[in-house]
This record gives sequence, structure tokens and C-alpha cells, in this order.
Amino acid sequence: MTLLVVGSIALDSVTTPFGETADALGGSAVFFSVAASLLHPVSVVGVIGDDYPIAELDRWIERGVDWSAVEHAKGESFRWKGRYSYDLQNRETLETRLGVFADFQPNIAEHLRDARYVFLGNIDPELQLMVLDQVRKPELVVCDTMNYWIQSKRDVLMDLLGRIDVLMVNDSEARELSGDWNVYRAARWILEQGPSMAVVKQGEYGAVLVDKQSTFYIPAYPLEEVFDPTGAGDAFAGGFMAHLARTGDLTAHNVRRAMVFGSAMGSFAVEAFSVNRFHEIGHPEVTDRVRAFADLVRFDIQPDP
Amino acid sequence: MTLLVVGSIALDSVTTPFGETADALGGSAVFFSVAASLLHPVSVVGVIGDDYPIAELDRWIERGVDWSAVEHAKGESFRWKGRYSYDLQNRETLETRLGVFADFQPNIAEHLRDARYVFLGNIDPELQLMVLDQVRKPELVVCDTMNYWIQSKRDVLMDLLGRIDVLMVNDSEARELSGDWNVYRAARWILEQGPSMAVVKQGEYGAVLVDKQSTFYIPAYPLEEVFDPTGAGDAFAGGFMAHLARTGDLTAHNVRRAMVFGSAMGSFAVEAFSVNRFHEIGHPEVTDRVRAFADLVRFDIQPDP
Repeated sequence: MTLLVVGSIALDSVTTPFGETADALGGSAVFFSVAASLLHPVSVVGVIGDDYPIAELDRWIERGVDWSAVEHAKGESFRWKGRYSYDLQNRETLETRLGVFADFQPNIAEHLRDARYVFLGNIDPELQLMVLDQVRKPELVVCDTMNYWIQSKRDVLMDLLGRIDVLMVNDSEARELSGDWNVYRAARWILEQGPSMAVVKQGEYGAVLVDKQSTFYIPAYPLEEVFDPTGAGDAFAGGFMAHLARTGDLTAHNVRRAMVFGSAMGSFAVEAFSVNRFHEIGHPEVTDRVRAFADLVRFDIQPDP
Repeated sequence: MTLLVVGSIALDSVTTPFGETADALGGSAVFFSVAASLLHPVSVVGVIGDDYPIAELDRWIERGVDWSAVEHAKGESFRWKGRYSYDLQNRETLETRLGVFADFQPNIAEHLRDARYVFLGNIDPELQLMVLDQVRKPELVVCDTMNYWIQSKRDVLMDLLGRIDVLMVNDSEARELSGDWNVYRAARWILEQGPSMAVVKQGEYGAVLVDKQSTFYIPAYPLEEVFDPTGAGDAFAGGFMAHLARTGDLTAHNVRRAMVFGSAMGSFAVEAFSVNRFHEIGHPEVTDRVRAFADLVRFDIQPDP
């Protein structure tokens, strides 16, 4: 099953209490695809400038990331610079330079238009709609967004909600979009706008999946050392969708498993700067972490006393 | 197995976005014992003034709460007045009047000194130590505290940590006590001071149990309507300890079950003012909610692909 991601390919300069990195691989499409590739091949649509370190991307081809549909444009690549607070709870954006990303218009190559699993990374919802106009019959469309678009392009976003299967956002985004501070009511509101599932990510606390039938909660992996939270949400999405694309199974119990694979990938993402942690791990580490999640929440119910 | 709680018996005046209540039953010993009594009889040690509405307490005797060891003192009962923010995330204390609680010294009646399960509610750690000096051979001592005592009586608290089995605090307390913002490292630090288990409550996100062997996370119950968060932590402790006292089983898998019973009681506590929700429920509702928790986190792992 072809898995397609459309999103940003950036160069991140991040300062955390534990160090800093400059012009490292970043962006939603990068975190998504690197994490996904541990489970399933993935094709990327995005744009890079003529300054992007292509050799860094190429290292992931062997793992299964197909960058061939990435547009190479003249000019500077998208750059983001940010700094986290001592407890990693808050981050400040120091600089955003859109570069070639400012004029990006996703053009889906013919061979990718039959992609069955499509992730719309956090970009302008008008561009997200353009992607949906080009893919023919996706089985599952998952979409991320952010407060900036909720405020500036709400109408477009509402159109988009009618055309996607899963909205995957963090809690503050779910609250702002729905106008409701209770995340479960916010998720219910999202379902009323069209999606069959809402995934609300809660950072260090975990993530919740809400559909019409049930609610599933997966805590975050209990890490004693978190190095850099950047990209955790996109890595989560990568694990979630790659598990579904790999299994081709959209039943409720398999979607729950996908949440666990997503959480596993999110937990790896934060253990190092950029996508560096993913260089060190393979299938065995993923399997081990998924098992650790099972142990983290395992309990049995006794017969009623 | 005798279950004993020592803590405050208060009259709470609480304002939430959904209403307000005046001089309603409150205090750690009240929330603890009312919740616990759904699962196991519980004896209370504390103090009330001559203005306390004893008939309100008496309603719980039939359920299994034994108030006979509560001291009746001349003067005003302990009163707390607080107001929650619109999203229930923050609360402001408007007034605290200690009344007869100011001179409280726990005196454990002879027949309660053999209590096997002892909960030290959030009171002055010197008084908590006085309780431990009187009970003879408890099987399990669980202790709560708060930032006020961490700041003002740290040395006493450190002595206490060497004499209890479980420290049960919220995340900000765990952070302040350990000086570490990472809750898992904070829990590890707590274990190094003596307790065999640390339970860190994270409010709307759930609670984590850490011991030397493993970590267990139970999310909070996904409530679309939270009415008043007051007392949730004490109700949690009540469910946790009553399950253990009822089963007399301190094995790891049963302690995990106790966490689920605790979470169930915490979720009931917040559905109404004071202990009002507990008037409406019995064993069937508790069992249903525990089952709902099992469904909330249930997933199976597929064989490795």
C-alpha cells in the first residue's frame, strides 16, 4: 500500500537545556517519513532549496524513504530556529524563514496519485486541499494542522475536515478549533465535522483516539531523559500510518495498535536532536518498545468481590 | 483487615464554573473514607468542631465508615474556601480557617492500633509520624503531603519517607520534593529515600505507579463533564487502599488493580460537589467503571511482521 506524506522539509536550529544543533534535518515530512520507514516504505512530497544537505536525506533511501518526488527549487530551504525552556514544557520560536517553502504548491506525480494512505502534514490547508484534489481514492487520509491556520484559515480548514478520515492534532489545537477546553468534547466536535476519528496528542502525557464507538488512551513512554521534543508529533503520525499501511487493516483493534506504534516512534524522536535517534534503531528496538508500552498499561480485572 | 485513615475533616466552600457550594463535607479523611467504603470498611481519625453537621457524616456509617474515633473538640471546624478557573486547571484558595484542626494531635484508640492498612492524609508530617509511633505493625502505610510541608518541614518529611511504603503525591509535589522536573526521575528519587512505591498523580492525565521493578500508568477516565476537582486525589487514595485492604494482596498485579480502583474513585469524585456523587453509586457502578478503564487502554500486540 503506497504511503504518501506531504509536508515541510526544513533545517532546524534547536536549543534545549542539553545542547544545541544548527541546520539539522527537520520538518513534518522528514520526521514523519524517517519514523514511518522503520515499518513501511514511504514517498515524500515537499520542496527543498539548493542549500539542502541532500546527502543527509539520501541516508534514508535504503530504509525505504522515497525522496524522488521532492521538488528542488532555487533559493533557501525552510529554516526554523527555536529554544525550549529548562523543563521542555515551553518553546519559543526565534526565527522562521520560509525560503522556497513560501511558493510551494504540491504537485503529486502520476505514480503517487493512487496512494492509499495519505498524511497531510501541517501546512496551509489550501495546499492540503490541493493534495486531496490530486489523489484518486485514498483509503485513509490523516491530517495535522496548527493554531496559526485555525486562526487565519478557519473556513478552508472546515472544508478540509469534511474530506479527511482522521484529524491528528495536539490538545491546544483541538481546544482552539472546537472552542471547547474539554478534550473529549473537543474530539466529539471534530467527529461532527466529518472525520471518523480524532487523535489528540498530549505531549508528555500521551495521546487519545476518539471515534464514534470508543475512546482509547495511550500514555507517553516514561522517559527519564527527554532530549528534544521537536518532531515527536510527526514521528507519532509516521508510526501510526506506517503500521496501518503495512497491515492494510483499518479495524478498530488495529487502529489501537497503530496508536502504540505512533507513541513508540514519538518516544524515539525525543531521545536525540533531529532524526538522529532513528539512525541507531531498527525493528527490534521498535518491537521492544511496543512491548514495553503493553507492560506499562497492563492490568487484569478480578471477578467482582 | 482494618483500614485506617488519619486526615482532615473539613467544611468546603467551592466555586467552579458550574456552581458553588457552601460548608459542604470535605477534607482528605472524608473523601478518602467515603470512596473507600464502597469497597471496604474504614475507620477515621480526625477532629471536628461543635458546628460540624454530624448527621451528614452519619449517612456514611451504613456504608462502612466508622467515625467513632473522630475527636469532637470545642470550637469551629476546619474550613476551606476556594475557586477554580473556567477550565478547572487552576484553583485559588480564598480562605483557610484551621479552627479546632490547629491543635489536633492524633490519638489512635487501642482497637485501631493494629490497623494493617494506614493512610496518612495530607497533614503536618510531625502528626503523621505521631500516627506511625502508635500503630503496631501496619502491612502498608501510604502517605500524602503537599508543597507547604515540603517547604516548611522538609527534614521531618525525610524522616517520614524512611517509614512509609508508598508516597502518593501529585506531580508538582514530586517535583518540588525531589528537585527534579522529570516525574520518572522524581519517582526514582523518592524510592531511594525509603518507600517501595511512588504514586504520582497527574490530575486530568492520570496517575503513575513506580516501583523498583516496573512502571504502570493509568490514564484518567475520559470525562466530558468535570464538575469539581476537589478531593479527587483523596478519593483515589481511598479506592487504592480499600482494594488492597479488601483483597489482602500486595502482589504487583494486585497493586496495579488498586491503581485502577483508585482512578475510578477519583473520576466519581469530580462528577459532583463534595462527596455527593458517592451517594448515587454502589458496587455495580464501580465495577462498570473499572471495566471501562480496561477498555480505555486495551490493545493487543501482533506478532512481529
